[in-house]
Amino acid sequence: MESVKSKSYEVHINELAQAALNQHISKSDYSRIFLLVDENTKAHCLPIFKKMMDAPIDSLLEIKSGEENKHIHTCLQLWQDLSNLDGDRKSLLINLGGGVLTDMGGFVASTFKRGIDFINIPTTLLSMVDASIGGKTGVDLGSLKNQIGVINQPQMVLVFPEFLATLDPRQTKSGYAEMLKHGLIQDREYWNDLNQKGDFTDASCIQKSIAIKNKVVLEDPTEQGLRKILNFGHTLGHAIESYCLDNPNKKTLLHGEAIAAGMILEGYLSHELRGLSKLSLDEIKKGFLRHFDPVDFAPDDIESILQLLKYDKKNSHGNVNFVLLQEIGNAVTDIKIPEELFHKAFAYYRE
Amino acid sequence: MESVKSKSYEVHINELAQAALNQHISKSDYSRIFLLVDENTKAHCLPIFKKMMDAPIDSLLEIKSGEENKHIHTCLQLWQDLSNLDGDRKSLLINLGGGVLTDMGGFVASTFKRGIDFINIPTTLLSMVDASIGGKTGVDLGSLKNQIGVINQPQMVLVFPEFLATLDPRQTKSGYAEMLKHGLIQDREYWNDLNQKGDFTDASCIQKSIAIKNKVVLEDPTEQGLRKILNFGHTLGHAIESYCLDNPNKKTLLHGEAIAAGMILEGYLSHELRGLSKLSLDEIKKGFLRHFDPVDFAPDDIESILQLLKYDKKNSHGNVNFVLLQEIGNAVTDIKIPEELFHKAFAYYRE
Repeated sequence: MESVKSKSYEVHINELAQAALNQHISKSDYSRIFLLVDENTKAHCLPIFKKMMDAPIDSLLEIKSGEENKHIHTCLQLWQDLSNLDGDRKSLLINLGGGVLTDMGGFVASTFKRGIDFINIPTTLLSMVDASIGGKTGVDLGSLKNQIGVINQPQMVLVFPEFLATLDPRQTKSGYAEMLKHGLIQDREYWNDLNQKGDFTDASCIQKSIAIKNKVVLEDPTEQGLRKILNFGHTLGHAIESYCLDNPNKKTLLHGEAIAAGMILEGYLSHELRGLSKLSLDEIKKGFLRHFDPVDFAPDDIESILQLLKYDKKNSHGNVNFVLLQEIGNAVTDIKIPEELFHKAFAYYRE
Repeated sequence: MESVKSKSYEVHINELAQAALNQHISKSDYSRIFLLVDENTKAHCLPIFKKMMDAPIDSLLEIKSGEENKHIHTCLQLWQDLSNLDGDRKSLLINLGGGVLTDMGGFVASTFKRGIDFINIPTTLLSMVDASIGGKTGVDLGSLKNQIGVINQPQMVLVFPEFLATLDPRQTKSGYAEMLKHGLIQDREYWNDLNQKGDFTDASCIQKSIAIKNKVVLEDPTEQGLRKILNFGHTLGHAIESYCLDNPNKKTLLHGEAIAAGMILEGYLSHELRGLSKLSLDEIKKGFLRHFDPVDFAPDDIESILQLLKYDKKNSHGNVNFVLLQEIGNAVTDIKIPEELFHKAFAYYRE
């Protein structure tokens, strides 16, 4: 499977990934190699990964899985661990886990002694197709997602689809949402392909999604224009995700589950404001509901979610800007939404 | 006074600084302007600064002064303040204070929503001549200085020497140490000039020091080689500073006071290992002791300081690398020191 070349690093998949890792380490003069895992990747991925590595791992760092642990106090523990374990500026941190772990491990590496090298090995489908590209690192601030972080690139990203077999199927399906998004914003044909498949975990789908995201990020690394299209479904999706995480009465949603709802809702806004056809809108709703159970939104929930919108980090000057679709495969950015349309969107979602 | 051009920004001094600030703000489309102060700059500098600014300040953020507050929990408070006060990605943070405040404010800005613009207005001599150039931001981890941070450049740095009149003279003298260092590592003539002056606070000295540091940083922005010479006196100096900060029985030293001792000690190492003449060594000791009281090092103190050395962030592979002088104005990097010389250096210091 061909590697995907990003600006300063490559994403290697399967057979090439192992070779690239060992070659990089043997040519680099790292003083210590740290491996960051959570309880899940420690149990299921670490035994496989250890066999792939020629060099020994000097120290294992462990954090608890889950978005609720993606905050600065976990970082503080990791910085202290790195310091106590004689981490220095020539140390390497390998992040073996899902997006929460690679976002947080990337941030810790980017800020430890003003930046050490790191390599990301995403182990969930979502992190393979999404967090693997773009250099976003960071943690949440209370219930506000990714408020603290930097943009910084790993040395390389290694994708081993075999790790997906170790996952809860719900986790894997969560990744389908970002893959479907890649089709919706850039590639009608890929959207069609995915909708004819039951399973998106083969290396060719993963590579296609990585390649789409990479193309977008390379054209606009600092998110001045095109890159914003990657936020399709995320403005409402993030608010939904934060709200459910913070509210003990709501089932916590995985990221993909939240943005799947977000994409149906923002698909509706696209229909109202940018001429997305009703046929395409219904196709989008059907495409997501095939994989994701509908979320139950009570009127109070909707009000709270709309309140949270104003904190979304993409907001500027107090306005909420949306990415909408003109058609499947073609997105536009910076659209303002009249307040009353949000309620109509939720009504369409619940139909 | 001529501005100093760094890679991506300029350091403006006096009359040009006010104009540059107002021009930058009027041409930028900032959503909100935040000003970070501590209790000292709030009382003494803010009234002066407010008159300089054409645009209104939207929100004032305040932290407590002092290295002991330069940690991640202060950052957490600032991130939360920015978030609660509707800070967004188009916000500007102006840091009005000494090096602790500009290092920490720079880090908070660099990591809030993955980076917002910031402007540094150093109010101490030390921060004018040192922290103003190089883009180092960060906070301490326990007693270990600057362990957490990033390299990121401000939009501009504004230097108003009139702020120095508001300072405790001990604070101002602390800045002399870095200025003397600039002479020692790069410019014999500047060292001579300074040693003929009683007061280093005029704009021409400040500009000369900024220009020397800027030249070094521009030649080696990522600290692969030349830039390391800026660490002269800092390897032992940082360990001394950390030790005194952490030890309730020792008087807390200002940064300049600690590195002044560090430079005498590393001057001795230079004499032993790199042929710095005894005459120059004595001249260095005299040059610093003219401004800085000798620090009282007991044998136990020395042992603890040497222990701390191994944590210095410049260390790599467990070795401690020193910058030494071949002669005044000419520094060399990456020198390893035989253990026993440290004790001889402290003996020379105490002579």
